[in-house]
Amino acid sequence: MSHAEKKRKLDKTQQERLYFDSYTDVTIHAEMIADRVRTNTYRMAILKNGESIRGKVVLDVGAGTGVLSVFCVQAGAKKVYAIEACSIAEHAVRVVKQNQMDDKIEVIRGMVESVELPEKVDVLVSEWMGYALLHESMLNSVLHARDRWLKPGGVLLPSTAELYIAPVSDRVVEDNVRFWLTVKDQYGVDMSCLADVARACVASSELTVDTVAVEDVLSHPARFAELDLYEVTAEALREVKGTFRCETFGSAALNAFCVYFTVTFSCPESPLVLSTSPFQEETHWKQALLYLDAPVDVVQDTAVTGEVSLRPSAENAREICIRVDYTVGEHKRQSKAFSL
Amino acid sequence: MSHAEKKRKLDKTQQERLYFDSYTDVTIHAEMIADRVRTNTYRMAILKNGESIRGKVVLDVGAGTGVLSVFCVQAGAKKVYAIEACSIAEHAVRVVKQNQMDDKIEVIRGMVESVELPEKVDVLVSEWMGYALLHESMLNSVLHARDRWLKPGGVLLPSTAELYIAPVSDRVVEDNVRFWLTVKDQYGVDMSCLADVARACVASSELTVDTVAVEDVLSHPARFAELDLYEVTAEALREVKGTFRCETFGSAALNAFCVYFTVTFSCPESPLVLSTSPFQEETHWKQALLYLDAPVDVVQDTAVTGEVSLRPSAENAREICIRVDYTVGEHKRQSKAFSL
Repeated sequence: MSHAEKKRKLDKTQQERLYFDSYTDVTIHAEMIADRVRTNTYRMAILKNGESIRGKVVLDVGAGTGVLSVFCVQAGAKKVYAIEACSIAEHAVRVVKQNQMDDKIEVIRGMVESVELPEKVDVLVSEWMGYALLHESMLNSVLHARDRWLKPGGVLLPSTAELYIAPVSDRVVEDNVRFWLTVKDQYGVDMSCLADVARACVASSELTVDTVAVEDVLSHPARFAELDLYEVTAEALREVKGTFRCETFGSAALNAFCVYFTVTFSCPESPLVLSTSPFQEETHWKQALLYLDAPVDVVQDTAVTGEVSLRPSAENAREICIRVDYTVGEHKRQSKAFSL
Repeated sequence: MSHAEKKRKLDKTQQERLYFDSYTDVTIHAEMIADRVRTNTYRMAILKNGESIRGKVVLDVGAGTGVLSVFCVQAGAKKVYAIEACSIAEHAVRVVKQNQMDDKIEVIRGMVESVELPEKVDVLVSEWMGYALLHESMLNSVLHARDRWLKPGGVLLPSTAELYIAPVSDRVVEDNVRFWLTVKDQYGVDMSCLADVARACVASSELTVDTVAVEDVLSHPARFAELDLYEVTAEALREVKGTFRCETFGSAALNAFCVYFTVTFSCPESPLVLSTSPFQEETHWKQALLYLDAPVDVVQDTAVTGEVSLRPSAENAREICIRVDYTVGEHKRQSKAFSL
């Protein structure tokens, strides 16, 4: 290969990288903005906190396309620092210009940990939540920004996060296992011996992110952890855990737990809750599903108790591991660890 | 880390690999067997070719779970060699046993190119088709097996493959671009400047595999290539190409081409066709979509003409590249290359 050819090749790779970078960004951001629960709850929370924001300085951590920063200016902020580490920051600059807010919103491309601001801020807004709250989350960055840049008595949006768990009977997954028992009727070939392999596949130790159907949730969800975002420390995030107790609604084959979160915004009248519960309107976070090795039969009022623990994966601190120790009715205590 | 710990770690990795290997296999195979068009067409083709199969020796290339081999024994084969390179072969052995055919079906784990059979075969059956027919396809392996193991005058199932192209107006994709124009109405933030980025994302040079809605197909599909599987050579597969001419049904914004295939089984009465056309029942192959850089308006009877070429990617021979040179009505000739 000649030098010129090599050069062209390199350029192509670079272009591709840039291309896919912007590709990924804009697609993901469209999904997030189209998530009405997410975007409307943030919008209402910001507008209802107009009293705290009007004439004040705001920091938007992980600003993405800058949509929350625009909401803050609409709520009366005199200045917004919109920090974004990814290339989407370039598009945030365009959005800010298009909304004639370039005198008020300063988009800063960089990591919040290394960015220098000319002043402390009155309000810190951030949409930092990942799957199962903490997967690939930026919460550590938000806490860093809080400790470094938020004035004493400053406002955090949102201000608390809660984690919930509920026992689930995922019928689709059971149908996928049972599929192998139906092949003989469909095609005249007995493939029932593969049902055990299918069960082993279902009972993976990978966290699955998917929508849990309301009718598959077997009890009222139990809250097992709460984070006060004004107080919580990076140290405390190394393990977030708590106990739970649920009582099942009726007869079913419990084959999974689902874990989800809410975050709450303090507002002058009543708090606003952004919920990712399977009982609420679907969000792009869906729910995290933890499949058991085998289904367990429950009846009405079977007690399902245990402890859940979330911690960063040993291999990659941005990835989450969830461990559940659980007891179903009279069955003996079980334990299973999951990662995403 | 102690030696014992290292060892345990290694074992875990190996287990995971084995685990995920079987995981991938059984999930993919469930999807393929559940594809009624695929499985029923193969089943009917094998049963209708009972005259060629009864008392004969069959080779099943890429046997998977062994379902086609079982069909062949049901059609009267006295012996089936079921060759499978992946670990799913172990499950094929179990399926064969469960159907009491271990005296007739010999599952051989290995690459067909290196396997040694004790005899030549009368019939070669294989489900070798990939996305856009040739992506990650095993056709080269089938041709190798044909040349090495099929007796002169032996039967190939299927015996021909055809490739088709049709102009498409993908409305979902246009909606995704237009989404950015709707944000202002929804949330009061003008994000229309991101529509051009979204368009660039849509107009990716990656092949997309997805279901094309019947109402989005803009003309009768045009056949641009046919492979006679008795005659075609590996050499000829280095580039499969042909010309096409379509006339559009009515006014629409042409923003993509879709490419799909059929394979045909000779049968005593009339041939059986396994079609992946958007006008037929959906299969797991869906269609391959090639998005243009910008939509082109067409009206009734606009001529869409051009040439399509499929060839293995330079980087990975198992991956496919598709190049389309096309002219829409009076517009000038365009050209775009895609890879999967």
